[in-house]
Amino acid sequence: MNFLEERILKDGVVKPGNVLKVDSFLNHQMDVDLLDEIGREFHRRFADCPINKILTIEASGIAIAYAAARAFGVPLLFAKKSKSINIDGEMYTAEVESFTHKNKNQIIVSKRFLTPADHVLIVDDFLANGCALMGLISIVQAAGATVEGLGIAIEKGFQNGGRIIRNLGYRLESLAIVDAMDDATGAITFRAQ
Amino acid sequence: MNFLEERILKDGVVKPGNVLKVDSFLNHQMDVDLLDEIGREFHRRFADCPINKILTIEASGIAIAYAAARAFGVPLLFAKKSKSINIDGEMYTAEVESFTHKNKNQIIVSKRFLTPADHVLIVDDFLANGCALMGLISIVQAAGATVEGLGIAIEKGFQNGGRIIRNLGYRLESLAIVDAMDDATGAITFRAQ
Repeated sequence: MNFLEERILKDGVVKPGNVLKVDSFLNHQMDVDLLDEIGREFHRRFADCPINKILTIEASGIAIAYAAARAFGVPLLFAKKSKSINIDGEMYTAEVESFTHKNKNQIIVSKRFLTPADHVLIVDDFLANGCALMGLISIVQAAGATVEGLGIAIEKGFQNGGRIIRNLGYRLESLAIVDAMDDATGAITFRAQ
Repeated sequence: MNFLEERILKDGVVKPGNVLKVDSFLNHQMDVDLLDEIGREFHRRFADCPINKILTIEASGIAIAYAAARAFGVPLLFAKKSKSINIDGEMYTAEVESFTHKNKNQIIVSKRFLTPADHVLIVDDFLANGCALMGLISIVQAAGATVEGLGIAIEKGFQNGGRIIRNLGYRLESLAIVDAMDDATGAITFRAQ
């Protein structure tokens, strides 16, 4: 069991509806030492890739991206959520459906900060149905840049985002994959990796 | 001139309507080395305060808060923006008007993560009319916690947020205070500190 799985067992809370609350250390209150360790682990797993930029989506992904950017010594870039359709042509855009909020957002990245010279690691705190990651992948592709891989803190293995992205041929590393949760007992089953 | 003022002169862009674009290094693409230096500078300026938590508001504030939390060796907490009025009583809330987006958001913080034992440094990337900071201050006060101070990267000195917050007696440290900008020449005038 790795450091993140141990922390999830210690401080994560299973709620009805397959909700895993990790808001005491990962996505509301944040433990910087843990995030730094996540960043270092992404760097270890993608050490063979010529990554020169970290891409994520606001909001909680920004902390994970910061930790990764520090570990790689490269800038980070975050996609902004925008209700507006009034985009001025200087932005790459994608449409993303939110599992948590049950709504659709347009996400945007300035064209100035993604070019064909970029080799991108996409990171986020959670992977469930994969909509956010697919939106980020489409933005990297629209820029002519290269997706070197995707680094996720917690993947919900019982939803299909991880399978879809791996089947598309992308290198996806999730530090903890939750295959089952039981809100009656609080039990969490991780996939052996 | 300090490191942040130098960087603003080098890479900031003045746009009509008193807009200062710093999205190449501070609030879209982010330079981690610069942010780390901002975090260390907050720590130097508030070294005499018993700060045990960093509070900010999503989204771009999270990176500044991460850097500060690392420098202080404490957790960070970010207020979430929520359109919902369906709050379940477990949250502190405040209403915040956005200067950039011309709309109102409710911001929320879980009651589990702010208590009377907390001594809080509030941080953000920008201070203009001060609405976001006033919302964060009111949340800290509702929790019975202590506002030790406020740390800002860039204050727009020609708007009144900084004056209001200082007049209320709070210790506010802005690393760069822009007193005037000229979009015709690109000139930026910093307040001597």
